[in-house]
Amino acid sequence: MSDFNQLTKRIVDFINDRDWDQFHNPKDLALSLVLESAEVMEHFQWKNNEEMEEYLKVAKDDVGEELADVLYWVLLMSHDLKIDIKEAFEKKMGKNEAKYPIEKAKGKHTKYNKL
Amino acid sequence: MSDFNQLTKRIVDFINDRDWDQFHNPKDLALSLVLESAEVMEHFQWKNNEEMEEYLKVAKDDVGEELADVLYWVLLMSHDLKIDIKEAFEKKMGKNEAKYPIEKAKGKHTKYNKL
Amino acid sequence: MSDFNQLTKRIVDFINDRDWDQFHNPKDLALSLVLESAEVMEHFQWKNNEEMEEYLKVAKDDVGEELADVLYWVLLMSHDLKIDIKEAFEKKMGKNEAKYPIEKAKGKHTKYNKL
Amino acid sequence: MSDFNQLTKRIVDFINDRDWDQFHNPKDLALSLVLESAEVMEHFQWKNNEEMEEYLKVAKDDVGEELADVLYWVLLMSHDLKIDIKEAFEKKMGKNEAKYPIEKAKGKHTKYNKL
Repeated sequence: MSDFNQLTKRIVDFINDRDWDQFHNPKDLALSLVLESAEVMEHFQWKNNEEMEEYLKVAKDDVGEELADVLYWVLLMSHDLKIDIKEAFEKKMGKNEAKYPIEKAKGKHTKYNKL
Repeated sequence: MSDFNQLTKRIVDFINDRDWDQFHNPKDLALSLVLESAEVMEHFQWKNNEEMEEYLKVAKDDVGEELADVLYWVLLMSHDLKIDIKEAFEKKMGKNEAKYPIEKAKGKHTKYNKL
Repeated sequence: MSDFNQLTKRIVDFINDRDWDQFHNPKDLALSLVLESAEVMEHFQWKNNEEMEEYLKVAKDDVGEELADVLYWVLLMSHDLKIDIKEAFEKKMGKNEAKYPIEKAKGKHTKYNKL
Repeated sequence: MSDFNQLTKRIVDFINDRDWDQFHNPKDLALSLVLESAEVMEHFQWKNNEEMEEYLKVAKDDVGEELADVLYWVLLMSHDLKIDIKEAFEKKMGKNEAKYPIEKAKGKHTKYNKL
């Protein structure tokens, strides 16, 4: 079984055991995704690069847990909306590669529509 | 190769080809994660459940692309911070299962600290 | 003195007393604005309309405090970037009124570019 | 009339003219607040301090408009939830001043619970 299927199965079992499916609708799932992403970001608030490096020496596991929370909602939302997230990812990467041709995008952080 | 390793490799190649690693620091990666999560959420703004259902019939692929963008930053951030995201996920799910015991959490959307 | 000037003065005094200006740059101010907005949103996660109404009977002051936090960053950011927020607001409202003509937008939650 | 009352009146008139009140519930208002805050933040993605300074020379008005959008939702939400935002702000500032005593907080970006 693929990583995605395996992790998604664990989420779905977790939810079914608690009868939580009744609360799940796309809006609240997406809202939860944003909240967890914000928690990742909060770790780096006010820190400069040196401070972030020092911080990560002690807080890497905490950040890892928050990223896991984000992944949780990505996988659950994909499951509920019947989105094949691996396929969606491959497709989007193809688009990214086309939107940012190497010769134009190399060494620049310019958005594709301004390249 | 696992799904995560395979997708992460594609991201890392994409970035290295464009010499973008120089712009990447945890704060901007996390900020990007939040922006993409917000784009997922925007799809459901103002829509009630019926409207979301109708909308997803035509916009499922668009939502899938936005979720893929979120996954992109989860994987890249995990890579850059040397976080094993699969391991972090398994660990966090173990914590979730402990924080939300079935008998207490069943059928409730109460946060663990108020259960 | 206008509301905005009065409140902004209180923020600026608060910051100067603590010598915090050194940490303030637009990216971290904006990041803080997002974090506080997410805290407002978290109050309504998983709740349906009836639950929100019940919840607000007891938690209105808490939500008010979070909204105050958002306002804090709006005012501080405007101050630091030398933006006259009242003027910016009046200008934007003029644009909104033009983008959403009454006869076209009435009773619809469609975004202006799809009206 | 105070700034807040004056701006809120303009928002309420704008909404009533378009019969949009029917779409407004606390969750979607808060979601909109987050989306607009994210748009403020997007302006600073990937930019270092020098780049932000340069950028603001040309884009200050754009950032001002996004901040105005955030203010719009703060005011509308306060109105709909019958929150006196000025009073909530004064109250919260009092709490901030108590949570961050000058002698302890001076020159540090540490969160109050770790001071």
